[in-house]
Amino acid sequence: MSETCDITPEEQARHAQKMAKKKAARDRMMMDKSGEKGLVIVHTGPGKGKSSSGFGMIMRCIAHNMPCAVVQFIKGSWETGERRLLTDHFGDLCQFHAMGEGFTWETQDKSRDIAAARAGWQKARELIRDPAIRMVLLDEINIALRYGYLDTAQVADFLAAEKPPMSHVVLTGRGAPQPLIDAADLVTEMAMIKHPFRAGIKAQAGVEF
Amino acid sequence: MSETCDITPEEQARHAQKMAKKKAARDRMMMDKSGEKGLVIVHTGPGKGKSSSGFGMIMRCIAHNMPCAVVQFIKGSWETGERRLLTDHFGDLCQFHAMGEGFTWETQDKSRDIAAARAGWQKARELIRDPAIRMVLLDEINIALRYGYLDTAQVADFLAAEKPPMSHVVLTGRGAPQPLIDAADLVTEMAMIKHPFRAGIKAQAGVEF
Repeated sequence: MSETCDITPEEQARHAQKMAKKKAARDRMMMDKSGEKGLVIVHTGPGKGKSSSGFGMIMRCIAHNMPCAVVQFIKGSWETGERRLLTDHFGDLCQFHAMGEGFTWETQDKSRDIAAARAGWQKARELIRDPAIRMVLLDEINIALRYGYLDTAQVADFLAAEKPPMSHVVLTGRGAPQPLIDAADLVTEMAMIKHPFRAGIKAQAGVEF
Repeated sequence: MSETCDITPEEQARHAQKMAKKKAARDRMMMDKSGEKGLVIVHTGPGKGKSSSGFGMIMRCIAHNMPCAVVQFIKGSWETGERRLLTDHFGDLCQFHAMGEGFTWETQDKSRDIAAARAGWQKARELIRDPAIRMVLLDEINIALRYGYLDTAQVADFLAAEKPPMSHVVLTGRGAPQPLIDAADLVTEMAMIKHPFRAGIKAQAGVEF
């Protein structure tokens, strides 16, 4: 790669000029962004990173000493490393509530799944209402919304009416219903471009759990 | 939401049958996935969650007592909460190396940016070669590849030739070049559906940093 290091003074000057313009444009853009506001954040789509990015944001809150909470609506059958890490090291800053019983095709019991989703949402409302809690992660709640175990309009209405202005709420899971997307401030869709499950590789520690 | 709780025994039975089928199909699918393998993982696209999901995976490794490392190729101008959290609490398990000087439009110095990218890649190679380190996160390296500060083919060749079989390498940043995507096992594109910057909201603690 050594050849690209030999850049001429002219090229260096052109680059500096181009980047100075870019910086000026960016500084202008950022100058308008003075608002602070608690956000409704949705991670959806079939790709990876929806829950892990949610956990990454929870770790950021912890790093800033912001009290936060996780409600896990669907518990996979594997052990969750994140849970252990959060409760062992940061239990004073972050509450963790695992409400779901497992993926719905594991339980095969619709009444139980509905009851678990509602208990999760009841706990979530309590946590969201508390203005001291700065971020609430509702992990995999979108699955419960998609299956109709919770009513999307009621969830959206609650967030609009009762979320404290400075609190963030993060809702993850594939298939987020459109009314939830409409109600959110920040929506990211994780698209799967390539996945090693297709090549016979199983879920692995550190990557999937 | 109480009405959906009143499900008939027939509906319950239909649901159980449908989910039992789904479970059987899933169990068959997962049975074939017996392989374990260190993965080359790419997070790209303009949406949020590329770095935070990478940090989420690093936290998962830490939860499993897997030694890991982060090389940050481009340092934003803000303080990074993750760095403080990692070094304060988990410095024995996770190394953190911040090599970049700032976004390229901040420095306006192409030679310095190239030198920083190469120093980062040198450190990255050393970390990846060490089989005791189970995951190396190359945060924002895709930016350096996209600007041509590092050669994508050389990076892909190194990963193919020298990455220990059981180690994971995660490469983040928008605009991942196609040869890197071709070389990866797991690629997720984060698409921006909605972003509050557009509504005048600035980067906030816990969400962006």
